[in-house]
Amino acid sequence: MNSTIPAPGVAVLGCGTVGGATAQLLYSDEALIQERSGIPVRLKYIVDLDFSHARSLGLPESTFTSDLNAVLADPEVGIVVETVGGLTTAKDFFEKALKAGKHVVTANKALLAHHGPELMAVARENGTALSFEASCGGGIPVIRALTDGLLANRIDALYGILNGTCNFILTEMAEKGKQYEDALADAQADGLAEADPTLDVSGMDTAHKITIMASLAFGRRFDLESVPVEGIDTLDLMDVKFGAELGYVAKLLAVAERKSDGFSLRVRPAFISTEHPLAWIRGPFNAASIYGHRVGHTMYYGRGAGGSPTASAVAADIISAAHGIDGTRFHTLGLYQDRNKPEKQLPAGAITGRYYIRAMVFDRPGVLGTISSILGNHNISISSFLQKEPPEAGDGGRSLPIVITTHKTREEDLNGALEEVNKLEIVDGSCTMINIVDERPENLS
Amino acid sequence: MNSTIPAPGVAVLGCGTVGGATAQLLYSDEALIQERSGIPVRLKYIVDLDFSHARSLGLPESTFTSDLNAVLADPEVGIVVETVGGLTTAKDFFEKALKAGKHVVTANKALLAHHGPELMAVARENGTALSFEASCGGGIPVIRALTDGLLANRIDALYGILNGTCNFILTEMAEKGKQYEDALADAQADGLAEADPTLDVSGMDTAHKITIMASLAFGRRFDLESVPVEGIDTLDLMDVKFGAELGYVAKLLAVAERKSDGFSLRVRPAFISTEHPLAWIRGPFNAASIYGHRVGHTMYYGRGAGGSPTASAVAADIISAAHGIDGTRFHTLGLYQDRNKPEKQLPAGAITGRYYIRAMVFDRPGVLGTISSILGNHNISISSFLQKEPPEAGDGGRSLPIVITTHKTREEDLNGALEEVNKLEIVDGSCTMINIVDERPENLS
Repeated sequence: MNSTIPAPGVAVLGCGTVGGATAQLLYSDEALIQERSGIPVRLKYIVDLDFSHARSLGLPESTFTSDLNAVLADPEVGIVVETVGGLTTAKDFFEKALKAGKHVVTANKALLAHHGPELMAVARENGTALSFEASCGGGIPVIRALTDGLLANRIDALYGILNGTCNFILTEMAEKGKQYEDALADAQADGLAEADPTLDVSGMDTAHKITIMASLAFGRRFDLESVPVEGIDTLDLMDVKFGAELGYVAKLLAVAERKSDGFSLRVRPAFISTEHPLAWIRGPFNAASIYGHRVGHTMYYGRGAGGSPTASAVAADIISAAHGIDGTRFHTLGLYQDRNKPEKQLPAGAITGRYYIRAMVFDRPGVLGTISSILGNHNISISSFLQKEPPEAGDGGRSLPIVITTHKTREEDLNGALEEVNKLEIVDGSCTMINIVDERPENLS
Repeated sequence: MNSTIPAPGVAVLGCGTVGGATAQLLYSDEALIQERSGIPVRLKYIVDLDFSHARSLGLPESTFTSDLNAVLADPEVGIVVETVGGLTTAKDFFEKALKAGKHVVTANKALLAHHGPELMAVARENGTALSFEASCGGGIPVIRALTDGLLANRIDALYGILNGTCNFILTEMAEKGKQYEDALADAQADGLAEADPTLDVSGMDTAHKITIMASLAFGRRFDLESVPVEGIDTLDLMDVKFGAELGYVAKLLAVAERKSDGFSLRVRPAFISTEHPLAWIRGPFNAASIYGHRVGHTMYYGRGAGGSPTASAVAADIISAAHGIDGTRFHTLGLYQDRNKPEKQLPAGAITGRYYIRAMVFDRPGVLGTISSILGNHNISISSFLQKEPPEAGDGGRSLPIVITTHKTREEDLNGALEEVNKLEIVDGSCTMINIVDERPENLS
């Protein structure tokens, strides 16, 4: 157990979007925070090399410094906010701050997903702690649900829409019929996507988050590299539209499930029934559904990114740190990754579920018969079938989409079947396969 | 600040639905809770006069006792769960437990809404604390959002669907076209409504909850008696249906808003646009939307009642109490009612908004002209108008519904106008008026 409560002076390392918003919140709302929390939290330093953004926010020059060592030597600074981002410098600063006995608050999911257990161990060795509410779900207090509100539950599953950029793009595609590239360009124009959107649209940002959340939910250590990840960058508008006809909404879904033979973590586009609450999440909003054996289904909704909402979560951690609450939790709960052994992660093939398959076929007689007998040979039974009339009659040279949904099947059986289907001459290119995620039964104890 | 962390032995007072489920959770999941929380929380006593329910749950006889004084004298009991319910005995036991220095955890919203500040003061005098996550929103950790996750925000508004019985009944009315009485009977058959459903359907249970939540959200003291409350027991299926035609869902909505001239708390049926996340909440589920000046709109969703979900919240409080975390918060935060002065509450008439009005009129020429000129005289402008064809042509003796929606207006102006309209000979009975609640702008700082 940590013996000391950190001093309420705060140093913010890195004055980018989140660091700037955090510094601005601490500076403008100092009186509000003291009134509400009873703690005199105070912005003491902004550590960076370039202060143009800090200046544009009207932050006080007296807090600007480039001397990290001097900041870490200041006993009035008990809490360090790491908003440098990335892996290299951030990790170096993070460790220095922990070794100086500071409580570190971060929004850096990449760093935690890659090096979480190592950093937690450094914190423990130095009698301090770290907090990372802002790393998952932006302003939504979802880390707190896992480490506090739902602590008396065995968590059975997590389903998350955890990337606002992707959800904005998918909402534009579904509701306005935009092509992926156009929706992405609009997201960039609105400041909702980076110039290089790879981390978001590839699903990797979401993979970082589900790895962190699943670790706390299940009290296990998970390996980011073993999470199957697919992004939205290969998703075809045609599939979004066909899914909608079938009553499904396409979402980039992070799933973490407890199974009888291990845990399954995965990130990929999924079709969610429009009856499921996660199907309601539109635009840049995020949400996480958490299933506990006592509480059943709970869901947490809000802005998953942006300076101000993320700063709200960082500031909540600063207050909890200054109360000694986050330190108590870090040193008492059994959920943190460094306290747990690496856990068996099931490959995507081990999942059972319903699937949507779309093949482009040349309009020849017998095509459905051929495909359905291949599926049958792999023990996959068809639930529904959809074939669109060709737009121009008699255009025999063009391939046309057929859509099949399956009953519950094991994904590796389906992979085997589709490998055969893809080899058929009547099939143009490769089939598209999307998991249909049904509403999960609550199984309340 | 409280100096001691309560011993992790727990006494549950009152073994009804919630008390029984809490005792059962603590007993069955003792190892799980210790593994996750790091705290050896243990069920030590069940205090009641009748143990038939406790026996039916398989709880150990060794915990059964009727001797509250002996329980309170046991130093191994640091935490007392008050699940007696009601106001009289519960309050007596609550105070005794606090005076014995125990940390008290409760789900009793009526008690807190009526006597919260008084009980908090007793806790403070005795160097102990109280926790009440389970009092609002059942298993949803929404009290924690207000006292922890959103602490760095100025909260501007709360909107809640906080009664599962009412939401189940309204969902059945809206989706299956059931009359109120039939939907209520079905809720009773499903165990979702009490034999005497008054506390739920009158809106009073919801009023208890919004009073507690608003106090924490705004850091003010509010008076339950000054909250305008209307239930769903007078809601007509016809209005639910007309609302749906206009794109609205009828919900029993609790609202607490910060206004420039005070705070408005109210509980009544409202029409919510189907675009608003709260419109999605179906069946017995609950949700609360909380708007903070940094985080924007966040929403918390889950089961608002039932033994197991409520016990999940009670157990979260027990763990936080045993960690010393709830004690720290109770003694540090400025949000608790006993630390704040009674606050000015605005009457319902002071609200401005859009309204739905339904009048039953005798089908005479000029009726709309007469009503609209009365509204005009009170500065109320009409946004839309709906008149259904009479089911049987020429049946001049029966009154027929007309529906008017207004532009934004002050409710007291509308009340004045409707008073005049109700006096018209062409109007049969009194008009029905329902507030239309639009999605709130986030106004992020």
